[in-house]
Amino acid sequence: MHVAMLLYPRLTQLDLTGPFEVFKRMPGVTVDLVWKSLDPVEDASGLRLLPSATFETCPKADILFVPGGPGQIELMADVETLAFLGRLAAEAEWVTSVCTGSLVLAAAGLITGRRATCHWTSIDQLALFGVEPVAERVVFDGNVVTGAGVTSGIDFALALSARLFSEAAARRAELSMEYDPAPPFHGGSPATADAATLQAVRSGIADFLARRLKASEAAALALVPHP
Amino acid sequence: MHVAMLLYPRLTQLDLTGPFEVFKRMPGVTVDLVWKSLDPVEDASGLRLLPSATFETCPKADILFVPGGPGQIELMADVETLAFLGRLAAEAEWVTSVCTGSLVLAAAGLITGRRATCHWTSIDQLALFGVEPVAERVVFDGNVVTGAGVTSGIDFALALSARLFSEAAARRAELSMEYDPAPPFHGGSPATADAATLQAVRSGIADFLARRLKASEAAALALVPHP
Repeated sequence: MHVAMLLYPRLTQLDLTGPFEVFKRMPGVTVDLVWKSLDPVEDASGLRLLPSATFETCPKADILFVPGGPGQIELMADVETLAFLGRLAAEAEWVTSVCTGSLVLAAAGLITGRRATCHWTSIDQLALFGVEPVAERVVFDGNVVTGAGVTSGIDFALALSARLFSEAAARRAELSMEYDPAPPFHGGSPATADAATLQAVRSGIADFLARRLKASEAAALALVPHP
Repeated sequence: MHVAMLLYPRLTQLDLTGPFEVFKRMPGVTVDLVWKSLDPVEDASGLRLLPSATFETCPKADILFVPGGPGQIELMADVETLAFLGRLAAEAEWVTSVCTGSLVLAAAGLITGRRATCHWTSIDQLALFGVEPVAERVVFDGNVVTGAGVTSGIDFALALSARLFSEAAARRAELSMEYDPAPPFHGGSPATADAATLQAVRSGIADFLARRLKASEAAALALVPHP
């Protein structure tokens, strides 16, 4: 079982490193971090990760995975990356994402007509691509599996691993990762956050979100539906 | 506010990448990943990360942080690393760890007599160093703050950030990371796991744990209490 995880500049690293930790605890899994070259890739906060394969060398993937993050805006207009994702998806069993990675899959025409989730700030933008936004933490629609924002990647990968390998293997991963979370404020979703926090986060990223919206609109116009 | 995170071979990357994601959302924080050289460091599952500073170049840290993972066994006998941690800790405001990183702090003599936590499989080994094991997800004892296994790093970093910066900033991080966890099996601690899973995880790592215990015993014997 081979997992290809797209690693790109200014991703949100936890979107990728959370699921990586889970997948690597499954029996017989190999994971590649894939980008255009093998040079270090810097995440949105300055963490530097090394790819293990390029678009040319990455083997056929059973699971194609796209994380989110600020750099996702540029990816939606990056024909080389979109074409690579299309090639891999055509042979993959599962097409998956966490956070705004679903917007990249949408821009590549890979989830048109599907139900999918995304980071709560940006989930409405899925509709621009003919994708049905579903505000749940993990969404399965056929072979398309998407997780919501950032930390949902852990839940996403555990849920997918239970389906792909066995519930027992996923349960062992949960316990070995001591995944018994205790969020100190229980305000990690727009439904549970207090009004001041919600307002602060929304206004803090308003300009950025407007830029993402423009990019999504442009990508949706450019979209040629995937066969 | 400067955070120095120890990055070493065969760490468990999520121990570090979870807290990294939280700390970088705090205002004015800089983070260094520190190791003996700037060459890539490979985690226990093959993820390769790049250090940003060496033992020689790392500036004074306000927060010293040590993650856990299999490579922690060798660190407990690595006098160069233990000495570096001692130097940094002497000037740091906070001495912190996640998972079996607390055993490294203990081997460096930095938390003798303190209350601390650790991955549930190994928490009893803290007592060998004169550290009081506390089976909680995040443990504060003065300027020593420790998190339990792997995923607890997110809770640890949010709790510490609330204390260091502001509760409002930590609440914003929780929401922007969409940290509204939904573990699919609710069995992430020995208290909540089913018996079969607990037994499988325990027997799967029995040999490894015996090796860690030997290393902890040797490190405890070698321990010269930190002044």
